Amino acid sequence: MLRTNLGQRIPEGMRDLLPEEIAMQERLEEKTLTLFRQWSYQKVLTPTLEFTACVQPDVEQADSLYKFFDREGRILALRSELTTPIARLVSTRMRGGGNLPLRLCYGADVYRNASVRHREFRQVGVELVGSDHELADAEVIALAVEAIAGLGLKNYQFNLGHMGIFSGLMLEAGIDESLQAKLEEALTRKDMVGVESWVRQSGLPGRVQELLLRLPHFHGGEEILDEVLNWSERPAIREAVESLRRIYRYLENFGVQANVSLDLGILRGFSYYTGAIFEGYVPGMGFPVVEGGRYDALYADFGSPLPATGFAIHLGNLLEQFPLPVVEGADILVYGSDDEKIIHQCQALRAKGKRVEMALGTIENQVARNIALLKHIPELLCVDEKGC
Amino acid sequence: MLRTNLGQRIPEGMRDLLPEEIAMQERLEEKTLTLFRQWSYQKVLTPTLEFTACVQPDVEQADSLYKFFDREGRILALRSELTTPIARLVSTRMRGGGNLPLRLCYGADVYRNASVRHREFRQVGVELVGSDHELADAEVIALAVEAIAGLGLKNYQFNLGHMGIFSGLMLEAGIDESLQAKLEEALTRKDMVGVESWVRQSGLPGRVQELLLRLPHFHGGEEILDEVLNWSERPAIREAVESLRRIYRYLENFGVQANVSLDLGILRGFSYYTGAIFEGYVPGMGFPVVEGGRYDALYADFGSPLPATGFAIHLGNLLEQFPLPVVEGADILVYGSDDEKIIHQCQALRAKGKRVEMALGTIENQVARNIALLKHIPELLCVDEKGC
Repeated sequence: MLRTNLGQRIPEGMRDLLPEEIAMQERLEEKTLTLFRQWSYQKVLTPTLEFTACVQPDVEQADSLYKFFDREGRILALRSELTTPIARLVSTRMRGGGNLPLRLCYGADVYRNASVRHREFRQVGVELVGSDHELADAEVIALAVEAIAGLGLKNYQFNLGHMGIFSGLMLEAGIDESLQAKLEEALTRKDMVGVESWVRQSGLPGRVQELLLRLPHFHGGEEILDEVLNWSERPAIREAVESLRRIYRYLENFGVQANVSLDLGILRGFSYYTGAIFEGYVPGMGFPVVEGGRYDALYADFGSPLPATGFAIHLGNLLEQFPLPVVEGADILVYGSDDEKIIHQCQALRAKGKRVEMALGTIENQVARNIALLKHIPELLCVDEKGC
Repeated sequence: MLRTNLGQRIPEGMRDLLPEEIAMQERLEEKTLTLFRQWSYQKVLTPTLEFTACVQPDVEQADSLYKFFDREGRILALRSELTTPIARLVSTRMRGGGNLPLRLCYGADVYRNASVRHREFRQVGVELVGSDHELADAEVIALAVEAIAGLGLKNYQFNLGHMGIFSGLMLEAGIDESLQAKLEEALTRKDMVGVESWVRQSGLPGRVQELLLRLPHFHGGEEILDEVLNWSERPAIREAVESLRRIYRYLENFGVQANVSLDLGILRGFSYYTGAIFEGYVPGMGFPVVEGGRYDALYADFGSPLPATGFAIHLGNLLEQFPLPVVEGADILVYGSDDEKIIHQCQALRAKGKRVEMALGTIENQVARNIALLKHIPELLCVDEKGC
């Protein structure tokens, strides 16, 4: 049936990948996953479709999931990230493996029904499950830095913060959930006008207000940790600060500290983060291409309480940072006027490991040369005895 | 939020792939795509989501697509196969490349909302676009046979038929569309009782009835082609038979004829097939694991009339045919009581190309040995000077 105009298009945010584009994406993914394997991570894959009861139990919440009903009326969603599905997998089919800590990695497409350029894009990432040690935090941060460096990206920048500082402030100041959500949202968006407005209306003690307004400006090296402690001696905040200090020193041991700044103003969009959180930027991209952190409460939601940390790299969004490779054509084009000879010759050359393009039907020298030129095929073979 | 029972499950027909399962699937896919590249096919990828106006313009038809509305009220569908999306891609973004015939291949998950074991499964396949030559048909059939053989499968069986024989009979006997659809459906399901019942009610001339009932029994070598010609001299049927004969002889040149039987009773479920069609079976699986054929009308639906042929292998369904590999653990586990030394040692070993697992926090010899045993890590390194 002749397609309408709509039937010749693809939905917003989707894209086709031409040979050179899929080749580049696969090259980047293979490079990154090879690195993950070197750090002892094992690949798993969860399905494209999950119940929202798994990935978003609070279905009332407005969000960017692609959702629809199955035939039984249950709500399905396309996966928007892998951390929650992997928590489900580890808590069910992989439960009781006994080999904690568990190091898992993935490469998969994720789907976000939001007004962003790509609504389907490739993610690669890791999950380190079963350790609350700061070495685990440092390991995944160092691995994220090495992954970005390994892709050949330059001038990337990682920021490292901690959910405990903001949530410690909120908890100890007795701020109600609604205001906390508004503040968190403004901070996540780095909307400083919004932050100031909400802080001024909060009725919080002046010192807490000042610290909240200072938070986004605590950006730099270890010295900012001491500065925070000058502002607040609250135990939850001190604990978060000292944890960050240990992680940051481990990063020095890993040799990646120079690429990571402490930044106490970062808050991550996913609600499951509980501890150290980080994000990575590359020049020219206005959003983080790496997002990660500690999430120590998520596994308990699946009935198997385990601390965990991890990150995801938005690989699909990084494609445009690289010049596209030339996709190689065949090694040789076999042509002539004798079909039987053409087939035999092609099969013989393939058996020798050659990449062979077979001409379909009799073609002459000039046509063969044109095809070879268009398809970047360096060699030509005419099977006819007298030449073609 | 604590997950409900539903929130800990995955939707029917979905599956998680554990390390050894994804490793096996990737191994099979890589092997097959390497073969496709050797035959000069280039990989492309289309999005998971398409408009139904593209993949199924007649949205009234009951079928197995996963469908849902986007925010503008248009119907989206998860791709259930790649042939139609690739026709869209070639007719739009890749249009006018000038390098026909075009050889494209893919490896992607497809989604079918039907009562089958797997509703999401991996497909690999090829499309050969721009040639109506029987060499093209033979090329893709031979490639499909070599792909299945290359996976290490034994006793596989391919059947080769032609849409033109059945449709020629229908056309020339003046059978109405509704009866044709019923007959076609019964033949596709190989429901011989149904076929006989519809044929007997058809009011067709006795000779046509007899030929229709004979169709499913035309199975074997080239001799059945002569047999068909004894039954009918209709030009459309003669043309289809002679085309099959040429393809079958090419298959002998390719060295794969022994694995392919002629079978004039096969009809493929997808409506776009117009010419030679084929399917491949492996023992123990009651459905074809390879499906392919010629579809010369589909590209015209996208405004760029081009003949084409291709096939898909249901790779995801073949996983169970292979023993799962042991997924290798790290080469070495580094442990001890000095975090700094542990990190340095891990990084040094990784720089040498070793696959390294880092112990998180101080562990003793016995614990390290247990971890190594559980995780199949052959070597242990304690960083403490006096030993651990």
